[in-house]
Formats: sequence, C-alpha cells, structure tokens
Amino acid sequence: MAVCELISVGTEILLGDILNTDAQYLSIELAKLGISVIHQSTVGDNRERLLAQLDEAAKRSDIIILSGGLGPTPDDLTKEVCCEFFGKELQLHEPTAKKIRNYFSSKGLEMAQSNLKQAMLPRDCVIFPNENGTAPGMAIEKDGVHILVLPGPPRELKPMFRNSAIPYLMQFSDKIIVSHNIRTFGIGESAMAEKVRDLLDGKNPTVAPYAKDGEALLRVTAMADSEDDAEKLCEPVIDEIKSRLDGFVYGVDYTCIEEAVVELLRNNCLKAATAESCTGGLIAKRITDVSGASDVFDCGIISYSNEIKNKILGVSEDDLKKYGAVSEPVARQMAQGALRVSGADVAVSVTGIAGPNSDGTDKPVGLVYIALADKDNVWVKELRTSRNDRSYNRYVSASNALNMIRLYIDKKL
Amino acid sequence: MAVCELISVGTEILLGDILNTDAQYLSIELAKLGISVIHQSTVGDNRERLLAQLDEAAKRSDIIILSGGLGPTPDDLTKEVCCEFFGKELQLHEPTAKKIRNYFSSKGLEMAQSNLKQAMLPRDCVIFPNENGTAPGMAIEKDGVHILVLPGPPRELKPMFRNSAIPYLMQFSDKIIVSHNIRTFGIGESAMAEKVRDLLDGKNPTVAPYAKDGEALLRVTAMADSEDDAEKLCEPVIDEIKSRLDGFVYGVDYTCIEEAVVELLRNNCLKAATAESCTGGLIAKRITDVSGASDVFDCGIISYSNEIKNKILGVSEDDLKKYGAVSEPVARQMAQGALRVSGADVAVSVTGIAGPNSDGTDKPVGLVYIALADKDNVWVKELRTSRNDRSYNRYVSASNALNMIRLYIDKKL
Repeated sequence: MAVCELISVGTEILLGDILNTDAQYLSIELAKLGISVIHQSTVGDNRERLLAQLDEAAKRSDIIILSGGLGPTPDDLTKEVCCEFFGKELQLHEPTAKKIRNYFSSKGLEMAQSNLKQAMLPRDCVIFPNENGTAPGMAIEKDGVHILVLPGPPRELKPMFRNSAIPYLMQFSDKIIVSHNIRTFGIGESAMAEKVRDLLDGKNPTVAPYAKDGEALLRVTAMADSEDDAEKLCEPVIDEIKSRLDGFVYGVDYTCIEEAVVELLRNNCLKAATAESCTGGLIAKRITDVSGASDVFDCGIISYSNEIKNKILGVSEDDLKKYGAVSEPVARQMAQGALRVSGADVAVSVTGIAGPNSDGTDKPVGLVYIALADKDNVWVKELRTSRNDRSYNRYVSASNALNMIRLYIDKKL
Repeated sequence: MAVCELISVGTEILLGDILNTDAQYLSIELAKLGISVIHQSTVGDNRERLLAQLDEAAKRSDIIILSGGLGPTPDDLTKEVCCEFFGKELQLHEPTAKKIRNYFSSKGLEMAQSNLKQAMLPRDCVIFPNENGTAPGMAIEKDGVHILVLPGPPRELKPMFRNSAIPYLMQFSDKIIVSHNIRTFGIGESAMAEKVRDLLDGKNPTVAPYAKDGEALLRVTAMADSEDDAEKLCEPVIDEIKSRLDGFVYGVDYTCIEEAVVELLRNNCLKAATAESCTGGLIAKRITDVSGASDVFDCGIISYSNEIKNKILGVSEDDLKKYGAVSEPVARQMAQGALRVSGADVAVSVTGIAGPNSDGTDKPVGLVYIALADKDNVWVKELRTSRNDRSYNRYVSASNALNMIRLYIDKKL
C-alpha cells in the first residue's frame, strides 16, 4: 500500500486565519483510493522550513501532496521550492501562459507580469489544469518519490484533485474503493448500531456508524478489483440494512434530508408550503437550498408574532391566549393556515422555544410542536430536545418537519 | 519571541473522519498571546511516529502543544509517549484518581479499571484540570523545552486551554495582545485596502485586510504591557479607519451583519418584515439566528410562486407578466406588500436568479433586485453577482438586503 503525506503551505493557517479543510478533504479522498495518509503538516510561506519538511517527508512517504502557495506574489513559493528540492528547473510553459493571458483579457483585466510566474513549470512534470483559477497544479517524480502540488483554495483544489490528481494516483491504487452512505432520520446512533451489530464486524464491505446534527448514518465501504465488483459487494449489505432500518432510512448517498424531500415531492407531483415560528425561515431556506426547488415549493410564512399567526394563517386568537403560541392547537392551525393560503398539497408548521430564553411561560426551552396538514388531515408531533442550544434546536426542529413530509409521502405518518 | 508548534494526535484526523478545528483554535489563541506558531502536524496513534515528531519539534520549538490521545484505551498514548521522550516516569496521582472515581459514581456508572490510566501523571508536571471530561492535561519541561498535553475534543480542550494553559504560557508572553475586527459591507477588499494603505504599514497596531463571503474586514492588533495600553493603541486607528470607510463600516467585533441589524432595529424600536423569493427564507433565517430577534422581527413571506406574490403580497399580475418576477417593479411591490401585510416599520424584499439555471428568460444568473419599503418610500437596488453559484448568490443577496436595513436606519440609503 502506498504511503502518503500532506503538507499544507500557508502562514495564514499557522495564524489560525483559515481552517485547514483541504487536509480533511484530501485524507477522505485518499482513503477511498486505498492510499494511506500517515502524516499531515502545515508550514508557513518559508523556503527553509518547507525544504526541511520535504526532506522529512521524502524519507517516509512515497507520495507527498502539497496544497497552497501557488499564487502570483513572491511569498507564494511552493512550486519553486519543490522543484529546488528535486533539482528541477522551471521554464515558461507557453500553453499555460496563453491560458493565463486569455483569462485576464476575457475579464477585461490587465495582467500583471508577475502572473506569468504561475506558467513557470519544470519540463518533465505532469500538469494539472485549474478550472477555477490561473495557477495550474503539477506532479513531479524523483527516485520513486512523487510530489503533487495543488492550489490552496478549496474551489480550485477539489476539482483539480478529482479531475487530475486521482487519475495520476491510480497508479498506486491496485484496488477500487466504493463507499455508500445510508442516511436515517428518527433513530439514534447507538439504537441504529444495535440493529445492525453483526454487520459492523464485516471486513469487506465494512459498515461504520456515524452521527451528525441529530442524524445517524451508516457508511458501507467495499474494496475490489473493479468498481462493478465493489458495488456488487455493497449491494446485499445495503439491502439488508435498509430492511432492518425500515422507516428510518431516507435514502442512500443524499447529502441531507432536504434533498430527499425535494426529490420525493417532485416524483409525486406535490407542492409544499411552510409556516414557521421558531425556525424563522430555516425549513424554507433548506428546501430552497436544493436547486430546482421551485417545482415543489410554493410559499412559506414566517409568523414570528401572534398577530401574524392570526392575521395571515388564521390561528384562533382564543387558542393563542388559552394554549400559548407554543402548543399543539397552534401548530395544527398554522399548518392548516399555510395550506389554505398557499394552495399547496401539503404544509408543515413549527412553533417552539429555541432558546436561550423561554417564552415567559413555564414551558421548557427545547419544546417544539411540528404539524403537517393535507386537505383531509393534520398530524402533530411534540418534540423535546434536551438542549439549550438555539442553533441546534432550530436545526433539529426543521429536520423533523422535513422528515414529516417524507413520512407523509411514504404513507408512514 | 517564544516559538511554538502544534502536534495533533489521532488516526481519525489522518482518515479525514474529523476536521482538525483544534489546530485553528490554538493558533488563534497563541497569536493573541504573542507566541508564534511555526509548525502544525498530525500523526496517528503510533508510538514511533509520535516520538519522531517530538524529536523534530524539540529541535526547533520552545513550546510543543499536543492535543488528542488522552482517552482510557490502549491506543491513547500521547501522555505516555511524551513522558518516555523526556524520560519521566508515570505514577498514580491520587487526587486525580479520586476525581475520576467520583465522576463515575456521580453518574451511577461503573468505572472500568482502565480509566485510572488517565490518573497516571509524572511527579513534576503541572496538572491541567479537565472541566468536561475525566482526562487531565499537563505541562512538562526539560532543558528549556515545554510540552503541553491537551485532550482532543474541543469542548474539553478549549476550557482547559483558557483556564490552565494560558496562565502557564504567560511566562513566555511579556506582552498583551488585543485585536479588533472592523467589519464593512459594500466595498471590496482591495478598494478597502486602498483607502487605508498607509495604515497597513503600521507596526503597532498592525492593520490587516481580510475578505470572506462577500464582505471585507480590517483586523487591528496591538501589543502592549497591559490590556488598557493595548486598547489605547487601537483606539485612534479604529477611529481613523471608521472615518475613512464611512458608510461601509457596520460595526466593530460583530460576527455577522445580522447581529448589527438586529441591534440597530432594537435600539431604534423598529420592527422588520421580509418578502423573499430566490433567497427562500434565508434573510429571515439569518435575522432569527440572532437570539432575541422576536423583539425586532415580525413576519416573513416566502413567495416562491407568482401566484403567492400576487395573492399575499399584492404584486400586480400585469407587472409580473410584463416585467417578469425578477424585476425592479416586482421587488418594489413585494417590499410594499410585506409592509402592508405585517404592520412592520420596514420591509425588505429580494427577487432574483440564484442559479444554476436562469428563469426561462434571457436574464442572467446572478441578477437580483432588492427593495426596502417604509410607509413613505421604497428604495430598489439591482445586484449582479458574476458567479453561477446558487449558495453564494443567495447568501450575498440576503447580506445586501440586511445591509439595506442598516443603511436605512443610518439614513444613508
């Protein structure tokens, strides 16, 4: 197995000005290729320190991946120092220079001469084109040690890694790794793990539980000679998990529940509306984060005050007085109101106490009512988070509302 | 100036399972103490590799701060390896053992014998108590090199760093460092820097420009013998910057513009409402992210469809047909509609094309109209972002709407 290490270059990381997300991204992607990362380091924009780090790295690793320090200014020196380390000379690479000139002229900008620094490349390197910037990356090799140089900004690094570095690195990976995430809602991590305990001991595929933001997921990872073979190993395990966790699984390889909900709504030609109090627009925001949401989302009412709950959504003033804004009847009437106002097929509502303070009654922070209405019925769910964490309570309340839409469409409400 | 480096210990970081936020947190805090971080590294839970890294580190740094690997299981070996490196013997520290036993009995849990591993400490260390866990941290010293060992989980590391590590590190810091962030909106980083170019050369305080999420900020940092003296150094420079960037500065040390807007609304006893199309609830979500927003936020209408724009907000059907949903007249009528519906003092609206696709007309992705209405007037702003990035376009549109509220209250609209 090829051994790899990462070197991030940038004084701004050492100052804490930016969070080093590149290291995590690269580590995850390398693990998928079956390449083991044994070391990560960060050095400043400093020739001596970078040379010393390259020297250390070359002693223990087959592959050294550097990120950052490819800009046009003199303090950007990653490429230059790597070439110095391997004794390779830089020369102007005319096609890259042309691309940089074109980039500037297409934007109607004048190009500073210093930008051509980014077109200086060693003769025998593999060039990694940059989709989102002017600095190309590269790979160079000497005595069996490979140095890959990538730009620092994630929006440049990620496509370059995907499109150029992975094909280059395939020479070190004799196996293909395939991973799938089975995403659940409404079950805790340990309860989920309990239901699939025997599968967690599997070696190929491996099954690993994770928890994040009030959700639990299982990652199924298989290694094989071909993608097809790896997929075939995953398939029966995924099916088995889905059947054991029936009702909790909202999908495989979605990045979030709103993605699943938008797709479900679209596939069923349904439109949704929202009425939000404590979530303050977060449910609608999450639905409309998904590109193409306009096909399935109609309108949202954020009724932060009691007057608006009554005036726009038609919540009874008496009930607001009698039960308070955070109550089962108010949640019910908010959902019905949103349905009526919008003409959508289904409406969800949330009213609750996100914190840090309660609402002046003796109701606890974290008490939330979530309702879903269609033209015939209303369902209401009471949620009690045990946390006084405004941001968490809002997020989890929105997730529960989204999950109610899913359960409704799946006829599991 | 004392030179410091960080070593994170944990195979889970090398696998990319967790993002190394500790390194950023520690770097920021150390910079405030005037301690320079010259290197960061991550090694797995591996004795040989950790010893090798300590060896490297001790050659170049006065202070080595390790985080992670203090758990009760055999693979947690940070403390043991650090003591081995300095030739120090571990022995049971009875007060710590008692604390661990109490922790378990107070939770009604049985303590595994292995937990006492966390009470093994060298005789001549400085113990750092752990508020949120059972593993104490420590500092040990040999030949002028100081090793600090901290737990990995941020909720254990941060309070320990604040309460124990900072007092320990004060011996290396003869100066106090104070930083303030001057936050602006509506001016680019380079235009901002141009206006304060001479101040960027200052040595004490230093002034540094940063850009993030469509905003630019200036960080003013002073070093002095006391906090008071450092504040006095910052003050005139902050005043000078504010006067040069008049109209762009929305505040000092806010974390985001919504914080400033909620405070401005509260101080002026005003209530706001929103009418959102392409931002889909994001403006309301950001306002209500701020605790106490209910004093200043009344309601929001997310009118994703033309029908809702007409039905709830009263946007003219003819204008929707004639100018399209993404147009100046529609933005204007949306803001007026939200004002009418809500009874708020001021309403903002957004209608635009966030992408990735256009709206079926020849209008470009990134075209956004933002309006603000009070009972007498309406102001409309046209925004053209040059990006096809849904998430960025939504965020920047929402920021611009929030900024319009600020300019309105400051009578600068």
